[in-house]
This record gives sequence, C-alpha cells and structure tokens, in this order.
Amino acid sequence: MKAALLKAFGTPLSIEQVDDPVLGTGEVIVDVVATRVLSYADEVFSGARNYLLNLPAIPGPGAIGRVRAFGPDATHLKQGDWVYCDPTFRSRDDARSPDITLQGWSAGGDGGLRLQKHFHHGSWAERTRVPTENAIRIGELSEADATQWCALGTLLVPYGGWLAADLKAGETVLVSGATGNFGSAAVAVALAMGAGCVIATGRNETVLADLVRRFGPRVRTQTLSGEEDIDRERMKQAAPGPIDCVFDILPPGVSPNVVRAAIMAVRPYGRVVLMGGVGMSGGPGLELAYPWIMRNCITIRGVFMYPPDAAIRLAGLVRAGLLSLDQFETTIFDLDRANEAVTHAASHGGPFKMTVLRP
Amino acid sequence: MKAALLKAFGTPLSIEQVDDPVLGTGEVIVDVVATRVLSYADEVFSGARNYLLNLPAIPGPGAIGRVRAFGPDATHLKQGDWVYCDPTFRSRDDARSPDITLQGWSAGGDGGLRLQKHFHHGSWAERTRVPTENAIRIGELSEADATQWCALGTLLVPYGGWLAADLKAGETVLVSGATGNFGSAAVAVALAMGAGCVIATGRNETVLADLVRRFGPRVRTQTLSGEEDIDRERMKQAAPGPIDCVFDILPPGVSPNVVRAAIMAVRPYGRVVLMGGVGMSGGPGLELAYPWIMRNCITIRGVFMYPPDAAIRLAGLVRAGLLSLDQFETTIFDLDRANEAVTHAASHGGPFKMTVLRP
Amino acid sequence: MKAALLKAFGTPLSIEQVDDPVLGTGEVIVDVVATRVLSYADEVFSGARNYLLNLPAIPGPGAIGRVRAFGPDATHLKQGDWVYCDPTFRSRDDARSPDITLQGWSAGGDGGLRLQKHFHHGSWAERTRVPTENAIRIGELSEADATQWCALGTLLVPYGGWLAADLKAGETVLVSGATGNFGSAAVAVALAMGAGCVIATGRNETVLADLVRRFGPRVRTQTLSGEEDIDRERMKQAAPGPIDCVFDILPPGVSPNVVRAAIMAVRPYGRVVLMGGVGMSGGPGLELAYPWIMRNCITIRGVFMYPPDAAIRLAGLVRAGLLSLDQFETTIFDLDRANEAVTHAASHGGPFKMTVLRP
Amino acid sequence: MKAALLKAFGTPLSIEQVDDPVLGTGEVIVDVVATRVLSYADEVFSGARNYLLNLPAIPGPGAIGRVRAFGPDATHLKQGDWVYCDPTFRSRDDARSPDITLQGWSAGGDGGLRLQKHFHHGSWAERTRVPTENAIRIGELSEADATQWCALGTLLVPYGGWLAADLKAGETVLVSGATGNFGSAAVAVALAMGAGCVIATGRNETVLADLVRRFGPRVRTQTLSGEEDIDRERMKQAAPGPIDCVFDILPPGVSPNVVRAAIMAVRPYGRVVLMGGVGMSGGPGLELAYPWIMRNCITIRGVFMYPPDAAIRLAGLVRAGLLSLDQFETTIFDLDRANEAVTHAASHGGPFKMTVLRP
Repeated sequence: MKAALLKAFGTPLSIEQVDDPVLGTGEVIVDVVATRVLSYADEVFSGARNYLLNLPAIPGPGAIGRVRAFGPDATHLKQGDWVYCDPTFRSRDDARSPDITLQGWSAGGDGGLRLQKHFHHGSWAERTRVPTENAIRIGELSEADATQWCALGTLLVPYGGWLAADLKAGETVLVSGATGNFGSAAVAVALAMGAGCVIATGRNETVLADLVRRFGPRVRTQTLSGEEDIDRERMKQAAPGPIDCVFDILPPGVSPNVVRAAIMAVRPYGRVVLMGGVGMSGGPGLELAYPWIMRNCITIRGVFMYPPDAAIRLAGLVRAGLLSLDQFETTIFDLDRANEAVTHAASHGGPFKMTVLRP
Repeated sequence: MKAALLKAFGTPLSIEQVDDPVLGTGEVIVDVVATRVLSYADEVFSGARNYLLNLPAIPGPGAIGRVRAFGPDATHLKQGDWVYCDPTFRSRDDARSPDITLQGWSAGGDGGLRLQKHFHHGSWAERTRVPTENAIRIGELSEADATQWCALGTLLVPYGGWLAADLKAGETVLVSGATGNFGSAAVAVALAMGAGCVIATGRNETVLADLVRRFGPRVRTQTLSGEEDIDRERMKQAAPGPIDCVFDILPPGVSPNVVRAAIMAVRPYGRVVLMGGVGMSGGPGLELAYPWIMRNCITIRGVFMYPPDAAIRLAGLVRAGLLSLDQFETTIFDLDRANEAVTHAASHGGPFKMTVLRP
Repeated sequence: MKAALLKAFGTPLSIEQVDDPVLGTGEVIVDVVATRVLSYADEVFSGARNYLLNLPAIPGPGAIGRVRAFGPDATHLKQGDWVYCDPTFRSRDDARSPDITLQGWSAGGDGGLRLQKHFHHGSWAERTRVPTENAIRIGELSEADATQWCALGTLLVPYGGWLAADLKAGETVLVSGATGNFGSAAVAVALAMGAGCVIATGRNETVLADLVRRFGPRVRTQTLSGEEDIDRERMKQAAPGPIDCVFDILPPGVSPNVVRAAIMAVRPYGRVVLMGGVGMSGGPGLELAYPWIMRNCITIRGVFMYPPDAAIRLAGLVRAGLLSLDQFETTIFDLDRANEAVTHAASHGGPFKMTVLRP
Repeated sequence: MKAALLKAFGTPLSIEQVDDPVLGTGEVIVDVVATRVLSYADEVFSGARNYLLNLPAIPGPGAIGRVRAFGPDATHLKQGDWVYCDPTFRSRDDARSPDITLQGWSAGGDGGLRLQKHFHHGSWAERTRVPTENAIRIGELSEADATQWCALGTLLVPYGGWLAADLKAGETVLVSGATGNFGSAAVAVALAMGAGCVIATGRNETVLADLVRRFGPRVRTQTLSGEEDIDRERMKQAAPGPIDCVFDILPPGVSPNVVRAAIMAVRPYGRVVLMGGVGMSGGPGLELAYPWIMRNCITIRGVFMYPPDAAIRLAGLVRAGLLSLDQFETTIFDLDRANEAVTHAASHGGPFKMTVLRP
C-alpha cells in the first residue's frame, strides 16, 4: 500500500509503497478514508517536541475509515462499517493504570513505548491497524462526509474533559484558552452538552468575537489583561451567576498565573479541569493556596484524552444535530502531498480549521 | 389576607379573609404572585383521590412569588426576591429517609401528616409560608412573567426522573405516556438536557404529532396498538439506535403490560425510570422476567418528585434559553374565581396547557 | 498438552493429548495451576442446562495460573506472573453493550457464540488462552496457595453485585439465598467490604447457624417460613435498623414470591440487586407493585458477573486479610480424574466447599 | 440554666446562670450530656486564632445529648432520643453553596456570621439549640457512654474526607500528618471503612509506632526526613502496591513541600484529599507541576467538614463494632471547671486523647 513514512526526525516524509498491515487476533484493519493533520505536526516531525516515536514509522493519529478485516474478538463489526479509529491505544493488562500510546504520534512513557513496538504505524497510509476497541462504529457516512468527521479527533479531547467534570445541562462554565484549536472545540462541545453559558477567555479579541457569532448568546467572552486579579474579577462579572466549572486548555509557554486567574474564578464547591500544556516546556509550577482549595471544597482534575466509550457518545451528539461538524473549514490533501499538508496545517491552526489527508 | 379555603371534601372552595401566616424561625413568608391549578384538582377536592389532607385548609402546591419575610436560617434571601416555592416539604430529622408532604395537597403517609400539622396551608392565598429551603431564588422576573414560570412545577417532576436516570447529552430515550401533561413535559425537559432523540409513545396520534411540530426531528413518535410485543418492536424500530433509557409516566388505570412494553425496549445495560401512577387504583402488579433484568444488567428506579437543588438547576435551563416556558398556553384566574379555575383546569389538562391563579 | 475434552453432551470427559493453544496478538497463554469444578458442572456436561457451548471443547471457566507467553498489547505482564484468569470474555467492539461468553462454559447469546469460535477452550488443561485483559496479576503465590485462590471465581460473582449496589461500609444489608455456594460467598464479601450487619436468609437453619459461627455477630439470620408477609416482617425485625440494600441470589426453581419477600424488606430509597437464577427454568415473572417502587424511590439492578477491574480489587481485600480464602474447604483432583471431580463437586456444593482440578 | 460564657477574647470563661434557649419552628432543644473540649480551645478563646465569633457567647461546637423539645419540622424525633449535635450549621436558602457557621466556634465568612446571629450559642451549657437537621439520632446509649460518643466529633472530620475520596474497601491509602489528633483519627476511620493498607506518615516515630500497636499490620508507617524526594520514595516503598488515595491533614505552619511529598506519591489516576491547615498562617502556596496532574489524571479535592448524612453513617460503623470509641482516652470535667478543662485539653491534644465537659 501507499504510505507516508517518517524515516528520521528533521527529514521530510517519504511517500512510498510499504507492506500492508497484517491482521492479528486482537485488531482491526481499516481502509483509511480521511485523517487529520494537526497544526503542530511539523514540530513533532522536526523533533522539536521530543515526542516518543520510534522511527522509521508511518505517522498519524486516528482516522475515519472503513473496516477491511477484523479479528475474532469483534462480534458486532462488519466489513465496510464506517469507523472512527481512536488513536488512544491502551495496554490491556492493567485495567486501573493502563499505559498509553497515541497512535503514530507519541508514547506516554516507557510502557507506551513497549506498546508502540507492535502498534507502530499511524494512519497516514491507505490502511491502518488498530486494537479492536479502537475501531468505533459511527454509522453510515458518504465518502465525502468522512472529511468533516475527522473533527471527532479534535472534539473528543475537550469532551473527555467535560465528561471528567461531569458537566450538567444548564451549568455555567468557563473555558480558559478558548481561542485555540482545542479551546474553541471545548466551547462547541460544552454547548452541545447543554451548558447554559460558556465564558470564553483568551487574548485574541477577534477570535473571541467569532465564537459569539458562531454560537450565539450562550457564549460570553472575556479578553485577558494579564493582571491576574483583574482578569479573575472580569471573568466572574462576565458570568450570569456563579461559575460551576472551569476548564483550562492553555498551551505550553503560558504562565501558570494565567491558569490560576481562571481556576480561582470557580464558585465554592466548583470543579476545575486541567487539560492544557502549561509547564510542559518547564518553568514554575501551578501555585495554589491550600486553604482556598480546602475551605471552598474545590475539585481539581487532571485529564488526559477521554474514556473508551467517548467516541460513541460524541457521535450521538453529532447525529442528533447538537454538535455541527460543519463549523470546521477543511483543506484536503492527498497522500502524495503529505509534506505540503503539514506545512499548510502549521499556518492554518486556528479555531475550527482542519487540514485533512485523504489517502 | 384573602384565601381559598377547602372546608370539607366535596364542597366548593370558600374565598374569604383568613389570618396571615406567622413567620417562624425555619420558614419564609412569600407573597404569592401566581400558582398552578392542576387538572385533577377537582378529584382531590371532591375526595375521589383520597389524598391525605387535613381540612379545613388552604389548598395549593407551590407558587411563584416574592419574599416578604424570612427566618434566621436564611443568609442569602432578600425581601422582594423572586422565588419558586417548592411544594415538596421534607421533614428535617432523617437525612436518608425524610417524610414528605406535598404542600396543600397530600401527605405521603403518617410522617407526612405530622409535617402537615404545621405546614398546613397551601398557596391559594395572598401569602404562603414554606420551609426555608423551599423558597428557591430564580432571579429577576416581571410581574407578568410569573404566570409562565408556574410551569416549573410541572417541568420539575420529569426533571427529577431524568436526574435519577442520569440522562446524558446525546442519548436516546423513550417517554412512555408522552401525551399527558407530565409526559409531554418529560419530552421538553429531555430535549433541554440534550437528549439526542426522544421516542414519544401514547395512544393519541394528534398529540404525538404536535410534539414533533413543537420540537422538531429529535422527537420521534410511536402510537400504541395495545399488543405488547408489537408495540415494543415498533418502539425499537422508531429509535435511531439502542434505547439508553426508558421513562414511564403513564397514569393510573393503564395496564402494567403497557408499561412493560416500554420497559423491555431498553437496551442491555440500560436504565428505566418509573414516575407514573400505574397500579395506584389497584389491579395487578408489574410483572417482569427476573432473568431478563439480571442477564441484561438493567437498572430500574422508582422516582418520586426531585431533589432539593433541582429547581435552581432547572431555572438555569430556562434562563439559558434551552427550555422555553412559552410552550405553555395559560389561562389566568384571580383568587375569587378559584372554583371556576378548578373546573377549567379539569377540561384543559392536555400537554402544555396550564391554568393559573393570580391572587 | 494434556486436557479434558467434552466431545458431546451426555458423554464423559475424555482426558487426552491435544495441541497447545497458539498465541495471537491479543491474548495471553497461561500455565494452569488450579481451576474450579463448579457443583453443577454435571448438569452442563449432560446437556440438562442447555448451555451454549460448541463441542468438542475443553471445558472450564477461569483458573489460577502463571503467564507463559503474552501478546504485544501487554506492557506490564512478565513470564511467570501469577494471574487470575477471568472467565468473563467480552467482545471488544462495543464498549457499551459487549457480548459475553463465559470461557469453556456458556455463551450469552449469539454474539457470545461468535466470540466462542476463537475463545473456544476452557481451562481444564495444562495451558489455556485468554484475552489479554482477562489475565489479571494477583501478586506472589506459592504453588500450593493456587488451590485456595480459585475461590476468587466464586467470590467475584457476589462482589460484582455489591459493587453495583455501591455497598458502603457500615450499611445493613440482606442476602436472600444465603445458604447456597454463591449466597454464602455474598455474606463473606459484604463483611469484607465493611457491611455493618448482614441479614442472611434461607431455609436451612444449620447452614445459617454456621454463617454466624464463621463470621460472628455482624451476621444475623432469618429462616424462611414460606409465608411472604411473615417472612418480610421477620427480616425487618432481624435487622438492627432499616435495611439499606437487598441482594438476591436464589437459585432457579424458587418462587418469585420468595424473592419479593426479601425485596420489599428494603428501606425507602434503598437498593436491590438481582443476581440469582429465579425464573430461568420458566414459571411466572417477578411481580412488584409499581406504586411501591415509585413512592419509595427504590432502585433495582440486575447484575451479571462483575466489571473488568473487580478481580484486582477483590485480590486487594484478600491480601489485606479482610477476606479469608481459608474459609473454603477444598478437594483436589488431578486432570486424569476430571470426571471423578465432576461427580464429587455435584455432591459437595454447599457453602465454602470447593472442588479443584490441578492439571 | 448553667452555662460557660465567653464575654471577651482573652478573658476566662464565666460560669453562670443564663436564660434557657427558646424553641423556634426550625430547631431542636437538646439537654447536653457531654461535649468535647478541643485542644486548641485556648487559642480560640484568647483571640489568637481570630475566629469569627460574636461575643458574649456560650462557646462549644456540638455535643452528645438528649432531645428535650423539637419543632414541627421533625417527624421522627421523640423526647429523650439520644442525638449527636452536629456543629456544622448551614444556611438553608442555597442548596448548592450554603453558608456555614461552626456552632459556638467560628463563622465561615460573612454569611456564616449572619447565621451566627440566631445560632449564637454553643454547647457548653446544660441545654443547647440546634437546627433540626443537626440533631442526629444515634440510638440507645447509657449516660456514661455519652462521654466516649463525643469522639464522633473528631472522627467525622476525616470521615468527610474519605467520603469525598470515595474510599473503597481494599484500597491502599496514605495519611499525611497521621500523628495529630485528626490525622490519627483518619487512620482509624480508613481502617473501619475497609482500607486494605494505611501508610501513616509523620515526624514522631513513637506516635507512628503506637498506631501500628493499636491497629495491627494493615497500618504501615513512614517517618519523614524532610527531604521531599526521599520521603516520597520511602512512602511508595512502604506501600504494598500503588497508593490509590492520599489524604493530607497537616497542621498550619508545615511547609507545603511536605504536603507535596505525599501528594505526588499517589498512583496515576489516583485521588488526593486536602483537609489540613497548611498555609492558614500565610507563607507560600502549594506548587504542583501542571503536566503531572494532567498526564496522570490526578483528582485533588479540598474538603471542609462532611455531608449532612455523615453522622448517621459513621454511627453505623461504631454500632457494628468496626470503629471503636474505646481507643479514646478521656478526661472528664464538669461545667464549673470549664476553664480547667481548656487548660487540660491544651496539654493533652495527642492522638486518641479527648477532654470532655459533662454539664
């Protein structure tokens, strides 16, 4: 089959013929129809991010595709079924603390690297092999629809956060870092889940205004001044009532004090979800007053990705018309132009923008 | 103050001057602005329903009104605050199994009757006295709005059921008995909470069609034939996928087999909520196959009313625009015409119809 | 390897040399050290139970053994690790409603039969092959200990029920059918989980008395008279306070009215768990008064087996000394005497008795 | 009645005759039989702690006593019932974020001060008045037993933390600050709830050794060196496996780095509960690495006191014999010697020591 191959960090992808994936007893082979190119793919491939990825490898996390073949531990799948290939591969021998590797992208430590030995290749190819539970049926699609459905991969990340926060319909929530690709998706997903009001914060006024234009008056915005106490007060004032839940997804490089401005805007007994990258490139930690957490009975949850049944459920929101994939403006490349797609994605990484490979 | 007084079952209400309620240390006095007249009020007042209500009494469960005075255990309330008076009065000396009396309406057994001694009067009066936790702030209203906000009383009942079912956004649910006053409210509330699809069942095709007209394609309907197995199959076929949750709110007099037709349409690992009146006037019980419950890991929950924080949360759905009170077509009566209101309500008890007293 | 083979229902097991299991990419090969012979194995092998089991097959659900080889989706396992082989094999392509087959024993319907094609053989052999997540590390054991650890298989079943009931330390619970093999295990597990009081009911006074002797005053007993209302009152009186949770595990053939006697002894807002076999061989269903369920806010949960992380957690209770495997009186047979073991098990099926094969 | 009166901070208590409390409609009058004198009472009365307490007032949080009179919102209470008077008084007009005052002790801010106007007096008197839901029936006692039952007040605090952590039987937990009065109680409560192993940490080796002597091998200890990384490694090594939950209850004045040593010993997907006083007297905040929280899916919960139904449930653990009040070594004073009791308590504040007033 044809595939994009990364042979060494810092080299371009090589588009070439490689062996087809071989089906084992715990996997599914999927014909890849469409797959996302993340905006920071260039930083992964250059080695700048130091992601744990054994090379050479076909990169690419997740895909939309059709089932080509499946192993004996699948009892519902049929050949041709449309599936979302979830890139969150988990080891299966520790139900409480599984090791994780993100397919074709990055291992979460040594255990993840062990998993990556077998689940070595990603989805930038005509076919891909995923663990059986990662091929998730999403119902009938047209070939063309597959492009938009790639947005599941982006939407699932904040969905995992909202599930961990146990977001309830009618609640008031705040998204800290709402102007990014995942942050804006967090706004869309919260609204689909019935959030009564979403306070979107960030530095870019234009992008914030665009969120209101897209989603209407349930979204309110607050531009950050950089003064922690002032920002916190403004966030509270922007809300129609106490803020039930704060969701942070700020990127690496932002000061933890910006995170804290948002965290401490939450009401007593409120919940905080941390899904961002703050501190990943070093710098001071997140400093919080112990008595504030204790007296106000605050819950703070770190969340990485999402649970195994999330994709089925998110697909339900899409099918019901509560979450529109049409928000996403997509640019399509074929596999031969994978390097071009990476360059394009890097400069088109804003909210509701998506670069898609169709092998 | 002026009040409607029920002196004996089977007699008309007497509209007369009575003593004002006296404030104690655990209560709130509310100026009643609007209060619902339930469609079956005539059956309660005639004695046909044998409700536990010590007479003479001012009847009437709940109200929308403004805080007139409050006791020392309130620290947030201010005079003039708009409140929903929740009629679910609970005894406060057993957190796990409180006795309940529905204000001005019916005690839930002997314990409820003891509670009714002090909380004796309902809301069909210029002023009413409720336990502190039952006066729930709902934010600013106009005087006129108070009429529509009476619908909270109707909507809260199914909301309690959906909370017990832990309804998640995107799920497919079925409302058994969707053509009644509470059943149609259950459809509205499920949609507001983000249900992906609501299957509405009932015998009245016109009413079912009206639900689709009101709420659009997330509602699907199924008319009942009376043949249990056929009805169940049709319910399943009406759904876009497995039914996650079945909510029954059929009235007294309906055969338990109609309930069972719906219950057993739920998917394996699904949840069932029972909030209806089936069996209240006697007849056989609900007969279910033990192995079906066990093998399919089904959860069945009986639900009476709703938890104490439900009204605040439901008001959030209304304020966010997710739940529209304008669905309700209301007819207003003043207190002097309370008997007329009862008669009117009895003949206007369908979905999204509401008779309101404004004292 | 040597194995016990069931070639046709109604024939004895044939002990012979068969091919070793072949490792796939989603499985673990385990050297079987000890495996339970259930008391009703004879009824399964004779065909009397009509269990869905494609023959010829090596029978036998679950085992205690050591890891011989494992596939690439295991990152924690090491060769030689002691594991509990969980017989609950689940299909992996539907996270919400997986098909289930009990290894070497019985498929739960058509989907389970599809799973049984590959996971065809049970554990009555020198080696067995299980899905990766079913080989659960239980820490260091001696070879001899493996026999007692087979009791996990029995204890896990009621553990699944108590987990579903969310049993809390200090609660008062009732086990309906406490004199059987699983029912008495339910008593032991509830106590290990911190139940304040366990009411054990059954017909056999001697066995009930033995439960008190084993576990002390936190166990109270009630012999059944067969009169539903009398039995229910006695159950309530036996308890030191309201009964928080009722757990039924009565066998097939018992009248559903005996189940109901227990169910309706639960307090308002209480929980009921159904794990028994009542109704499996036909007869009337379980008939309950709808208004009783509704007004008292009762939760009834059907439970089949237990969640995937249950074995790790139950092993924790054993390791902590809270749950003693020494309660079980075991008789050991080697593989050559498998038929003898089946006969022995049939006549030694009482509480805390266990027949074990050591291949 | 006779009472101990604090007229001004920094003055001794004055024992004198005062008016009896007057029953309102939302309260219970209790004859105080026994009430705790906390070890830091002297610091509260001197004014050193700056607690929000309007003077003059009868101090004293909570009591064991008998119901003398009750209002109309109690349907279960009877005169003479033994009750635990829970000092956590909550305002009743905001179910989600109630204001709290600790009876006769300290208001939690302005809202708590408003509540304190009416609920002004504590329990160091012959009689006390508490909100109806704060008089919690604990079953039959002898007069003498009341002294030991005062320990409920101490045990309930960590119980609230373990409930928030959702501690499961069989889990491995760590108590950070196990040598104090509340910390040692946390060890006792965790064991009563079925913890498989409790790692107790602190600086005092003798006290730690005493915990093992009292509770046996399910307790393991770790003395702190003050070197964060070393201490964390030792905590992990002391545990028989991954630590599921870390509970911190270190006092004011301890460095947040000591807290962090414990927090980061928790396993991936683990839970952390913060109930201590660290940072209350100022100093730096608790600094944590954001990526550690996020990648490991850690949950951190601040907890203040415990939910309203906690006392009933904890009493269940005591009644079942799972939690022994006899651990506590008590010294009794009568009301006339209240000042002496305060002095005694200050110098006898260690684990399982209790000073009790019996009015």
